[in-house]
Amino acid sequence: MNSIELLASLAQPASSKMVMLIMDGLGGLPHPETGLTELETANTPNLDELAAGGTCGLSEPIGPGITPGSGPAHLALFGYDPVADNVGRGVLSALGVDFPLQKQDLAARINFATIDAAGKVTDRRAGRIPTELNRKLCQKLREIKIPGIEIFVETESGHRAVAIFRGENLSDQLADTDPQITGVPPLAVTAISDEAGPTAAIVNRFIEEARQRLADDHPANMVLLRGFAKHPSLKTLPELYGIRCAAIAVYPMYRGLGRLVGMDALPAGQNVGEEIDALERAYDQYDFFFVHVKPTDTNGEDGNFAGKVAVIEEVDRLLPRILDLKPDVLVVTGDHSTPALLKSHSWHPVPFVLSSNWAMPDETIRFGERACANGRLGVFPARTVMAMMLAHALRLKRFGA
Amino acid sequence: MNSIELLASLAQPASSKMVMLIMDGLGGLPHPETGLTELETANTPNLDELAAGGTCGLSEPIGPGITPGSGPAHLALFGYDPVADNVGRGVLSALGVDFPLQKQDLAARINFATIDAAGKVTDRRAGRIPTELNRKLCQKLREIKIPGIEIFVETESGHRAVAIFRGENLSDQLADTDPQITGVPPLAVTAISDEAGPTAAIVNRFIEEARQRLADDHPANMVLLRGFAKHPSLKTLPELYGIRCAAIAVYPMYRGLGRLVGMDALPAGQNVGEEIDALERAYDQYDFFFVHVKPTDTNGEDGNFAGKVAVIEEVDRLLPRILDLKPDVLVVTGDHSTPALLKSHSWHPVPFVLSSNWAMPDETIRFGERACANGRLGVFPARTVMAMMLAHALRLKRFGA
Repeated sequence: MNSIELLASLAQPASSKMVMLIMDGLGGLPHPETGLTELETANTPNLDELAAGGTCGLSEPIGPGITPGSGPAHLALFGYDPVADNVGRGVLSALGVDFPLQKQDLAARINFATIDAAGKVTDRRAGRIPTELNRKLCQKLREIKIPGIEIFVETESGHRAVAIFRGENLSDQLADTDPQITGVPPLAVTAISDEAGPTAAIVNRFIEEARQRLADDHPANMVLLRGFAKHPSLKTLPELYGIRCAAIAVYPMYRGLGRLVGMDALPAGQNVGEEIDALERAYDQYDFFFVHVKPTDTNGEDGNFAGKVAVIEEVDRLLPRILDLKPDVLVVTGDHSTPALLKSHSWHPVPFVLSSNWAMPDETIRFGERACANGRLGVFPARTVMAMMLAHALRLKRFGA
Repeated sequence: MNSIELLASLAQPASSKMVMLIMDGLGGLPHPETGLTELETANTPNLDELAAGGTCGLSEPIGPGITPGSGPAHLALFGYDPVADNVGRGVLSALGVDFPLQKQDLAARINFATIDAAGKVTDRRAGRIPTELNRKLCQKLREIKIPGIEIFVETESGHRAVAIFRGENLSDQLADTDPQITGVPPLAVTAISDEAGPTAAIVNRFIEEARQRLADDHPANMVLLRGFAKHPSLKTLPELYGIRCAAIAVYPMYRGLGRLVGMDALPAGQNVGEEIDALERAYDQYDFFFVHVKPTDTNGEDGNFAGKVAVIEEVDRLLPRILDLKPDVLVVTGDHSTPALLKSHSWHPVPFVLSSNWAMPDETIRFGERACANGRLGVFPARTVMAMMLAHALRLKRFGA
């Protein structure tokens, strides 16, 4: 019996409420001038009080040294095995735009890009075109016809879109076309395993047609495809634990991640304050809430140390609105670290606090990387968070006599 | 090679003595008025001195968030995989009353219960009848005859007894008859897997006969059966590690748990002081002693914070008698937490200290939840305790060249 099955076998009904507040990319590294991380720099009286009364530690998304993408990082927090149950980006993108993905569908992330007269990539993001232009270009791509294949193209935002190919026997064993650098042509789609050859031919034909149709749309005159994937069949959180789950996230992919594990994706507005509005509105209808804050990660990726500090302080100011709902279990953590100094996701374990009437407090009295390192949980696997939340919500029976 | 096989392959003889002192349900949660747990409240100069000189940490019985029953919690401390080697309650009950269980036997816990004229359960514990009455009722149940099956019925204590069915091809794939609530009739025994059908019929016949024979014995006019189980075939501690093991426990089930892994269950008297008498008497004849203290758990289950504190203080006062024996390795911990505030077993990891001439002391100078959280072992799996004890007893060879 693996741990998710064991946990599911112990699930019992309760009326308790759980909130998992994820600040994307929360963990950081010390600023060279101050020696303090983004979170340690931020003025966070409410998070500090939460840490003082709760159980603290550092959540490790996948394993020592492993830097996760958003997919595995969130699946781990939702209690799944992030390696065995890894989900491709194409699927996440499709779910994030509310696309009703079917079992036979093959999905891929599209990035609009710029190529020069020689066909070499000059901008992998097409100057980050506005979403409105993206919509017009997707409309063009929808007109591409390939016999036996139904093609869907949906805008995500900016330069990002998603393609879904529907047909018989499509394979997701395909390599990305994004060369990851400029000055070279896009890669052709290649089959990673033999049976994917016909699918590679179909996708290459789509890309060639797209190139022709976008020829006059500089800077968005090319598409790069990556993250080819089919729908995984995960047992959902409602199925596993008998809990009604809601995802509250401004950014589409995180709503998609929530849907993948059986959450209802609620209208979440455009910022953290509106996300908490959504939480308040839906509070009576669900048992478990996943609330996702994106700009911590965005600022980290941009190397904007002060911007990330400001987002953390904004969340801290809004935290009392969540506390006023009196959830039985509140977890605040990140899906991974995105140190502004590194300008990218990283492997560093992430500050974590669990607050509950049944939480054993430790001696941690601040919410920060070093403070949480001294918490009683130490460095622990993110995939145990769900078990801890269910336990503190008194939603797990005793194991064995 | 699993870890128990690795450990066994390294076992070597020695003359060292090991004592594992288990305070059942030791871990707790802070009292709202003082902010201190039961153990943190107790005056424990001897345990504190042990912590100051030993290696400390928090022992996690099964895994994060999992609340264990007594069976898996002890099997983990004895070094077994508590999930793979989970033992049913029926077997634990049978072993606890010194019943010589055979391989083909099927055992089940009996709870005497009260049903009304409509056959609905009104008290799942029959008003907790005295043990003497229990003995008379068991005598009645022994008179039930089912062709081809030998039936044994033994008193545990209060409303609890155990039934053993001996016959060919009996299956333990049976669901409990205890409905867990009052106001409904007992459940019939149902087969969980197909081959258990004939066994279900046998047990249902036993229950029907019991109902008829107990009709005039209100409040104990019915039996509820649960925890159907057969004897697991665990390699014993003497087989694995070449150590002579003794179990010293007042409460039957814990003697049974010890026997299951090859311990001799010694006459243990009626209280902790008499248990230590037993330890002193048998000290020369064994290498490993499991000493079990029950009332910490009983008080926790009853929500008696002060009572649990008092039991811990009693153990602390008696500890010098164990220290006077100069065991080479002394471990003091619990099998799980039973916070008085929660009035039940819980998932919280348990304070742990290992004292030995070869133990690396840490900076922990008190024996308590928060003090041990800062111990060098951090939160660690209970099933590693046996390896640590054998190592500090110098009973494990080097691994590899």
